[in-house]
Amino acid sequence: MSVGVRTLKGVTDSPHMTPEEFRAHGHTVVDWIADYWAGVEKYPVLSQVSPGEIAARLPAHPPEQGERSADFSKNMLADLDEIVLPGITHWQHPQFYAYFPAPTTGPSVLGDMLSAGLGVQGMLWATSPACTEVETRVMDWMAELLGLPAAYRSTSAGGGVIQDSASSAALVAVVAALHRASGGQVRERGANGRFTVYTSTETHSSVEKAVNMAGVGSAQLRVIEVDDKLRMRTDKLAEAIAADKAAGLTPALVVATIGTTSTTAVDPVRVIGELCQANNIWLHIDAAYAGAAALCPELRDSHDGVELADSYCTDGHKWLLTNFDCDIFFTSDRAALIGALSVLPEYLRNTATESDAVIDYRDWHAPLGRRFRSLKLWSVIRWYGAEGMRAHVRSGVALAEYFAGLVEADDRFEIVTDHQFSLVCFRLRGEDAANEELLSTLNAAGELYLTHTRVRGAYTLRFAIGAPQTTRAHVTAAWATIQAAV
Amino acid sequence: MSVGVRTLKGVTDSPHMTPEEFRAHGHTVVDWIADYWAGVEKYPVLSQVSPGEIAARLPAHPPEQGERSADFSKNMLADLDEIVLPGITHWQHPQFYAYFPAPTTGPSVLGDMLSAGLGVQGMLWATSPACTEVETRVMDWMAELLGLPAAYRSTSAGGGVIQDSASSAALVAVVAALHRASGGQVRERGANGRFTVYTSTETHSSVEKAVNMAGVGSAQLRVIEVDDKLRMRTDKLAEAIAADKAAGLTPALVVATIGTTSTTAVDPVRVIGELCQANNIWLHIDAAYAGAAALCPELRDSHDGVELADSYCTDGHKWLLTNFDCDIFFTSDRAALIGALSVLPEYLRNTATESDAVIDYRDWHAPLGRRFRSLKLWSVIRWYGAEGMRAHVRSGVALAEYFAGLVEADDRFEIVTDHQFSLVCFRLRGEDAANEELLSTLNAAGELYLTHTRVRGAYTLRFAIGAPQTTRAHVTAAWATIQAAV
Repeated sequence: MSVGVRTLKGVTDSPHMTPEEFRAHGHTVVDWIADYWAGVEKYPVLSQVSPGEIAARLPAHPPEQGERSADFSKNMLADLDEIVLPGITHWQHPQFYAYFPAPTTGPSVLGDMLSAGLGVQGMLWATSPACTEVETRVMDWMAELLGLPAAYRSTSAGGGVIQDSASSAALVAVVAALHRASGGQVRERGANGRFTVYTSTETHSSVEKAVNMAGVGSAQLRVIEVDDKLRMRTDKLAEAIAADKAAGLTPALVVATIGTTSTTAVDPVRVIGELCQANNIWLHIDAAYAGAAALCPELRDSHDGVELADSYCTDGHKWLLTNFDCDIFFTSDRAALIGALSVLPEYLRNTATESDAVIDYRDWHAPLGRRFRSLKLWSVIRWYGAEGMRAHVRSGVALAEYFAGLVEADDRFEIVTDHQFSLVCFRLRGEDAANEELLSTLNAAGELYLTHTRVRGAYTLRFAIGAPQTTRAHVTAAWATIQAAV
Repeated sequence: MSVGVRTLKGVTDSPHMTPEEFRAHGHTVVDWIADYWAGVEKYPVLSQVSPGEIAARLPAHPPEQGERSADFSKNMLADLDEIVLPGITHWQHPQFYAYFPAPTTGPSVLGDMLSAGLGVQGMLWATSPACTEVETRVMDWMAELLGLPAAYRSTSAGGGVIQDSASSAALVAVVAALHRASGGQVRERGANGRFTVYTSTETHSSVEKAVNMAGVGSAQLRVIEVDDKLRMRTDKLAEAIAADKAAGLTPALVVATIGTTSTTAVDPVRVIGELCQANNIWLHIDAAYAGAAALCPELRDSHDGVELADSYCTDGHKWLLTNFDCDIFFTSDRAALIGALSVLPEYLRNTATESDAVIDYRDWHAPLGRRFRSLKLWSVIRWYGAEGMRAHVRSGVALAEYFAGLVEADDRFEIVTDHQFSLVCFRLRGEDAANEELLSTLNAAGELYLTHTRVRGAYTLRFAIGAPQTTRAHVTAAWATIQAAV
């Protein structure tokens, strides 16, 4: 046998980083991360750069020659320090109280590193069985830790899967709900304008985005009023459902929220769930932030009625100590998901899939490819244990209670809503303008970072606790800074 | 001022991993990854476990107590070795020729680690300006490296963004196309059954999935025949468009492929693009695998006509040396994307967004949250440089040519299609059954891993080269194994 004149023309020496080179650079990068975490308080929390400032400091064109030397990581990290860090808003800073904190923790990063290092694809069970089976087991653990219904376990007709975000989880819920409501017709015939979706005025914007993306159309989205506690009004929901049915429309989905983004209000899930069951409507629960509260028995009443939901999600990357991306999504009806999303071309056929004895997670979300994300959740659960995870949640709740006490003791301020979790919504009594100015002054100074919302129209500051490094001393200092800025 | 009786009841000592603990565990994990890469050839490429085998070796319940000790990483890694690795199909093994290889490389993992360590959210420019600006700059670099049109640069009406996968990119393309075709009506009124989408019989299944998810419905998907080279037939495409228009439907989107998943066929993009322009149809190009070929001038004719496309994507995590997830997506019409996807609630409002001087990438895809993914692409580009990235692509093409020569020299086999990139489709002459048996025998033995497709109905083996560690010696050995298994 001869291969004739074919040669490897054009092939130069391998330009790849060797395992030994990676070992050296990897240690350097780990040291940088440890130093960054240890020293994060020296940076202003909120980046103070202007638009275009960071981009302008990067080369206009990509390099022709590679930087393949022993100094590679040193040079990368020098640029990270000099060019990138001024443009970073430090989400891991203990004085980060904006949005909801999105912690990265040591055990999570270790799991994430292993996921990157293994570099496996979990699109099918067959493409790396452990990637699927560890995820299934860890998600069953999460259902147990959160006291979620048996119908969400892999041993039932449901199961759990890691999505990238609560936004993507909402999209999947919309698609599954349409599939079930249409008896499987939507995937062939399209959304066709006859399905309706229900949220409240306080529901996260991702649901409207999902409704738009899924071709339902925002005209079919019913945005239900809230009560004085900012909870969906179930009387109004019942009216809207009845009106739509009378008009010949098909109510497909209600999204209830446990812990709204604006104020952490909790919708009356049990009543909503009963309405959904009576009307054969898919109920999705967005507990992106407050799901973690269900770790603690004393906070679990926030989840009353959750067994009536067809799907549920909470973010590992919000209050659950796991770095982005890690949305923990459960459904009690995996057949609806798979029915809506599965397409099986020849090049993905395999014996395991055809045996029907395995889960192929590619059919549970939009992406085909998927990394081994359960490693980081596994690592977090092992490091903390249930007791450690609960301690973190309790710390957030207690610090919020402490902060609220500080606010209440100063007559210039008012607490705007209940604060059963780790967010406190507060404001200066009086005009919005003073509050806007206060927020702007605080964030420009860089000692802490807060964001705002509007509650019943009033401009309100949000103090969201959750960064692992935040202690009582940080909260005390933050309050002193706020008081001094008035 | 007094805070009264409020105390931090229920708060135990901090259960978090300290930076110094992370430093030690991080080094251990880096060493494990380096050792894994150096020794990956000792494992069977394809995992040989049965369904349920891995899950059964994990504890049934989550731990109550955490494992917060100096042995944490040692214990995690022991379980990884003993429990997880038997269930891993080793995508980084040099004898992995299945699907398209999805490499993880040293510089990419370093960038990924930094992304995890910084733990910033790039949903808005304001939430970490560098996360947005580095991505914008690096995507401009990628457009330059791939010779893509100026309309894809951030300085035009278009721009680039990292999506998680080509599947999600397809979904975004469908949604943007519907938005433009409907004059912005779809997001309000829904997809409503009057829009049509065009692919070929060889287009990736993700497009059908996206069409279903976006509420278009697969009945509105026109699957166009291919020619003898498995390229979309433009005469049939023109006929289908004309027929739909005559029927009062609105052709919204054509998806053309550069490098199909099955055989790496290249659709006639220029003719398709001209048809799209004449009919005001969005053209999306899926170059998930073969986009990398455009790095090399001598392979760039595969991209002829790409300037006629409204959107384009290629996967950093396929032939571009970057670990998942990193789909490189460009559009020449970012207004359509943003128009379709943007929803701005009060809690996301900020001065920078309102100034219109910044990019908020949350409006470019389904998820709101997003990690700092451009760090890994930046790191890859710096390590390899343009010349190093080209060398990797050329190595794949040359090895495929070498492998094809080996196949051609053995009369029992035939090459089934052209092999202009790094995939060779081949089969034993004769019956499908013999080919199915050959594949099954090879994969069970564990020395290499191949997958299959069907070409014009015939069961065909795919030999996809792309793992960074694959050398000519590996290909020689693989061919000897294949010959011996017949």
